[in-house]
Amino acid sequence: MASTNRQIVLAARPEGLPKESDFRPIETPAPSLGEGQFLVKIQYLSVDPYMRGRMSEAKSYAPSVALGEVMVGGAVGTIVESRHPEYRQGEVVVGYFGWQEYALSDGRGTQRFDTSVAPISTALSVLGMTGMTAYFGLLEIGQPKEGETVFVSGAAGAVGSLVGQIAKLKGCRAVGSAGSAEKVAYLKNELGFDAAFNYKEADDYVAKLDEVCPQGIDVYFDNVGGPLTDAVFRRINDHARIVVCGQIEQYNATRPPRGPRVLWHLIVKQARAEGFLIFSYTHRFPEGQKQMAQWLKEGKIKYHETIVDGLENAPKAFIGLFHGENLGKQLVRVA
Amino acid sequence: MASTNRQIVLAARPEGLPKESDFRPIETPAPSLGEGQFLVKIQYLSVDPYMRGRMSEAKSYAPSVALGEVMVGGAVGTIVESRHPEYRQGEVVVGYFGWQEYALSDGRGTQRFDTSVAPISTALSVLGMTGMTAYFGLLEIGQPKEGETVFVSGAAGAVGSLVGQIAKLKGCRAVGSAGSAEKVAYLKNELGFDAAFNYKEADDYVAKLDEVCPQGIDVYFDNVGGPLTDAVFRRINDHARIVVCGQIEQYNATRPPRGPRVLWHLIVKQARAEGFLIFSYTHRFPEGQKQMAQWLKEGKIKYHETIVDGLENAPKAFIGLFHGENLGKQLVRVA
Repeated sequence: MASTNRQIVLAARPEGLPKESDFRPIETPAPSLGEGQFLVKIQYLSVDPYMRGRMSEAKSYAPSVALGEVMVGGAVGTIVESRHPEYRQGEVVVGYFGWQEYALSDGRGTQRFDTSVAPISTALSVLGMTGMTAYFGLLEIGQPKEGETVFVSGAAGAVGSLVGQIAKLKGCRAVGSAGSAEKVAYLKNELGFDAAFNYKEADDYVAKLDEVCPQGIDVYFDNVGGPLTDAVFRRINDHARIVVCGQIEQYNATRPPRGPRVLWHLIVKQARAEGFLIFSYTHRFPEGQKQMAQWLKEGKIKYHETIVDGLENAPKAFIGLFHGENLGKQLVRVA
Repeated sequence: MASTNRQIVLAARPEGLPKESDFRPIETPAPSLGEGQFLVKIQYLSVDPYMRGRMSEAKSYAPSVALGEVMVGGAVGTIVESRHPEYRQGEVVVGYFGWQEYALSDGRGTQRFDTSVAPISTALSVLGMTGMTAYFGLLEIGQPKEGETVFVSGAAGAVGSLVGQIAKLKGCRAVGSAGSAEKVAYLKNELGFDAAFNYKEADDYVAKLDEVCPQGIDVYFDNVGGPLTDAVFRRINDHARIVVCGQIEQYNATRPPRGPRVLWHLIVKQARAEGFLIFSYTHRFPEGQKQMAQWLKEGKIKYHETIVDGLENAPKAFIGLFHGENLGKQLVRVA
């Protein structure tokens, strides 16, 4: 192995949209193993919108990254050295290893990944936290029933593209919004969405929803928030379920975001809005991963990964999420 | 019986706060019975905030009252004449009889009330729709667990005052907000709330909530909406349940109400906001009424009714709801 470890650390707390200068590449000596530890050579990093919250000092569900600290994030790699009784060299593991080439681990919060099932990158996409977010978010919180309409915002993203496909597998009508004509075509032609639209070209979201969801919306899987979500509240059906997964529209807001009050719609429609964090479902990942792997094998679920090469490009890839540059899951290939 | 029927009809659709001139008293000939009908002499009318929605043309969960039509609303009275095989003269019945002295009914949507259990007025308060709203809203939607903190807005109102007491019976800490020092004293000294505050005298709701709910909020029973509810979203605990029962703060709004976006809080706290209409629980009223009657008998639930005399004063009593003039349930004594 190398004698140095390249890392990306948080250089500054962003105001608004993160800039590349908010990150800094550094080189440190390669970490040395203690008893009960193993060393992972990272192959892929996941970049996800939630990381914007970790860059901020504001209190949230997880601690902030300190200035000068390695950026957090899920990663997958191979064990290159082990002094841990239960992990062997050559095993592929997934964990919150951060934005770096090598990571030490004592095994806590780490799962093995079976590369005979699917390519290693899927440990971070369809078979990883992303896939599980779609799976448990839609099925447990959304409770879709056959014949219902499931609308998903950010539908061409990592989670959204899976949500729509799972909805179809459950006998629902799947409808999505995305940010380009290419993405919309991808949703309809490749993933089998029943309808989709480019939110950047719709000037009246309520009218657009009436067009693409003529029976109203029974389940809304919200990755985005903002004005589109406001419109959805006006088009939900009785007993609708709103799965609040992400609110990317406001992650870079510099002032507290405001909008129409929405709770009244919940009364009138006897509807529910529920947020979730996928970490609470970790104990059920094996169940979700088994089902996802089965669907993959049967060709019932498709996935797309947008991969950039080089650890040094992780900040750019991360920032690109807020410009909708990714189709499906955004990954960084490190090794 | 009298040869005429006094009624209150909708005279104009209100803009903002309803005025007395939006209503008009009229006299019509007393209705004559058809086969399968009975005639009810109304003793008490219920006035409730939800009626503001029925006065408006905007689409909601129930049809608007037409101009010139008798105002809707729950009422209780005695059958004075019957040509219905299952209802006898002298029986006390509850139904949506409207703002009038006499109502015809074919029995649909009507329940008998057993006056040996409690005074007739309770058919509209603690043992009626109001009590059932508190009971099923808190227990079914709110799912309070022993030791949790239940916060209720509009706590001295018809529903809120019962919610706090039921929360106490379930082993929760009950905290409420109300609009006067007298109401706050009533909550703490008469109803056994653990804490309460006058929202009109609090200038920082978040700080006030920190003071009265030092362990955060597990269940929020929201009758009010607006800035107080905004603050609650910032003080909910993990897995909190927000029961969206009413949003009286905005019922008279002349422009679509706006406020801070709240969905992000639901994600971070893995929390749920759910609206409900009590009509969906009608089939379970016997169960709720039995429990409430039991609690009443055991002295475990107290209730207060604010009663005004005279059908002609129904508009004034209704408008008073929006000024917080009622303590507990607002009723109009007709006969």
